[in-house]
Amino acid sequence: MAAPRNDSFLRALLRQPTDHTPIWLMRQAGRYLPEYCATRRRAGSFLQLCKSPAMACEVTLQPLERFPLDAAILFSDILTVPDAMGLGLYFADGEGPKFERPVRSEAAIHALRAPDPHDELRYVVDAVSEIRRALDNSVPLIGFSGSPWTLASYMVEGGASDDYRHLKTLMLDRPDLLHHLLGVTAQAVTDYLNAQIEAGAQAVMIFDSWGGALSAHGYLEFSLAYMQRIIAGLKREHDGERVPVIMFTKGGGQWLEAQAEAGADALGLDWTTDIGLARQRVGHKVALQGNFDPTALFAQPASIAREAERILDSFGPHPGHVFNLGHGISQHTPPEHVSALVEAVHRHSRSIRAAAGV
Amino acid sequence: MAAPRNDSFLRALLRQPTDHTPIWLMRQAGRYLPEYCATRRRAGSFLQLCKSPAMACEVTLQPLERFPLDAAILFSDILTVPDAMGLGLYFADGEGPKFERPVRSEAAIHALRAPDPHDELRYVVDAVSEIRRALDNSVPLIGFSGSPWTLASYMVEGGASDDYRHLKTLMLDRPDLLHHLLGVTAQAVTDYLNAQIEAGAQAVMIFDSWGGALSAHGYLEFSLAYMQRIIAGLKREHDGERVPVIMFTKGGGQWLEAQAEAGADALGLDWTTDIGLARQRVGHKVALQGNFDPTALFAQPASIAREAERILDSFGPHPGHVFNLGHGISQHTPPEHVSALVEAVHRHSRSIRAAAGV
Repeated sequence: MAAPRNDSFLRALLRQPTDHTPIWLMRQAGRYLPEYCATRRRAGSFLQLCKSPAMACEVTLQPLERFPLDAAILFSDILTVPDAMGLGLYFADGEGPKFERPVRSEAAIHALRAPDPHDELRYVVDAVSEIRRALDNSVPLIGFSGSPWTLASYMVEGGASDDYRHLKTLMLDRPDLLHHLLGVTAQAVTDYLNAQIEAGAQAVMIFDSWGGALSAHGYLEFSLAYMQRIIAGLKREHDGERVPVIMFTKGGGQWLEAQAEAGADALGLDWTTDIGLARQRVGHKVALQGNFDPTALFAQPASIAREAERILDSFGPHPGHVFNLGHGISQHTPPEHVSALVEAVHRHSRSIRAAAGV
Repeated sequence: MAAPRNDSFLRALLRQPTDHTPIWLMRQAGRYLPEYCATRRRAGSFLQLCKSPAMACEVTLQPLERFPLDAAILFSDILTVPDAMGLGLYFADGEGPKFERPVRSEAAIHALRAPDPHDELRYVVDAVSEIRRALDNSVPLIGFSGSPWTLASYMVEGGASDDYRHLKTLMLDRPDLLHHLLGVTAQAVTDYLNAQIEAGAQAVMIFDSWGGALSAHGYLEFSLAYMQRIIAGLKREHDGERVPVIMFTKGGGQWLEAQAEAGADALGLDWTTDIGLARQRVGHKVALQGNFDPTALFAQPASIAREAERILDSFGPHPGHVFNLGHGISQHTPPEHVSALVEAVHRHSRSIRAAAGV
């Protein structure tokens, strides 16, 4: 397989020059698109949609047919891994994801095993292969997983939480048990991402959605250390092409210096961090991905363009920026506002390169 | 009125030496205390409790009878100010605060007026006087208000929000209108805090609970600028005593350098910031208040003590630290765990001063 015809996303992750700033959007295949809702209705449920490689492929491609995005991302869910560990993922109406068997006792934690991605997670690996074929080398495909800390939050709490009470109590009272849980989960994520890479994912991203709920020292010990371990175990080259790794801790803007040492090629930023200052803080160690506030997509197109330009101007005309949101897109976003954002990023990033003579 | 017999809290805010690190807890008069729940039941509702100076005084004193805390904080709610502006505050069962008349139109925003604290907010001013008499100079009394940005989030959204969609759309599409709203609210907060100071509040705190939802530049323009304006308008001395000001932006750890220039005597920190690094970043410009994760109060007393010691050790034996939580205490907290925290802070802060010979 050759490099994609539009390789701006991969080049930007490796801090190589591009003629525009590439853009993709977290959760770009999602409920704000009527065509996604139609496929999901046909699938019967969100989980059945995830578990059907053909339908996962279909929704992965939908946003690319509407918008000139520079990358595709595998349609899946971060909770496929603990589901494959036997915790029993289900979605209660209007309540988000839940596990039938949360993991809290010493016995339950010691019984955890890393699943074989070619067995219990075969449907994801098959989806990656199918999407790669369908993309036909137009744009690169991103694979992904949740971080061990973020997966642990659902595994221990049994679902979403606003204070992570059980998880944090385990962390403080029995750090040995939590370290065991995180170690097994890190192995599972490493195997899972490597299987995605072998199936054709051209970059991978680790979503640490809830790392920002930790104290500074807790983050280093219970979240960052395990992402670093995963990154060290990833295949970084496949089919003769480098496979870049993006690490994103939402709410982690205070810890960028430590993140830049973890071995990732790029760091994700939510919208609370000034991307120009972030670039100064991490130097030339990593590329940066972000960081438009998804709620700003409810404003008028002219306001959206102004906010996008502010981010591009703050980063400057240098290589190493992938434009994205700072969090997943809201289901209530008007699709035409996404068009306005993509257009503004492509247009303005070309014009600042021209003005800088690069 | 003389200085309180235990003035460690006021001294720490002014970065003067104290023989221990003073501690109080955000929402220390709250639902985790059975005696609070009893008074609230007697009052009939949370709002009636806030509006009765006698009962507000009663619950303000309850935590001080249980724990050797170093400060009392006025029992009230941040939404008294927009309620006094005529928005119609009410509490729907299990849904948190709501306003009957949210402010979104140009006409509604231009009709806003800063209320007279001695008229519409008289019940708060009376509560401050009554609490000061009841405290009888034992420990200092803290007055408080919400920040203009945080109050605006409720005023525009009409209640709690997870994405501040209406507020952020107003900010991006009609910044002129939002600036008008914030300007009137900043005047209201200034008048309100000055009335609390005149009635006997010995320190005041501005709670910017939702400033952390902004981008870096949005924070400076729409939240910090208005807190700075308020601080510039406050009476900083009353009855011959200095009245320190604490400013707390939850989720604002990335912007401490800018916060340190806003004129406050102390900055609040949530638990995501390492307090030792924060001290290096702000130098000797301000004292720091924080920063124990309230969820850590669910751990065992020995774990609670260890976490408290870590924070005290990180700050070091220098003057200028007020111990607190990084967010309000959870209603499910066991009161005996609060005892363990207060005891650990007093004990360990004395021992690190002794070890350092200060």
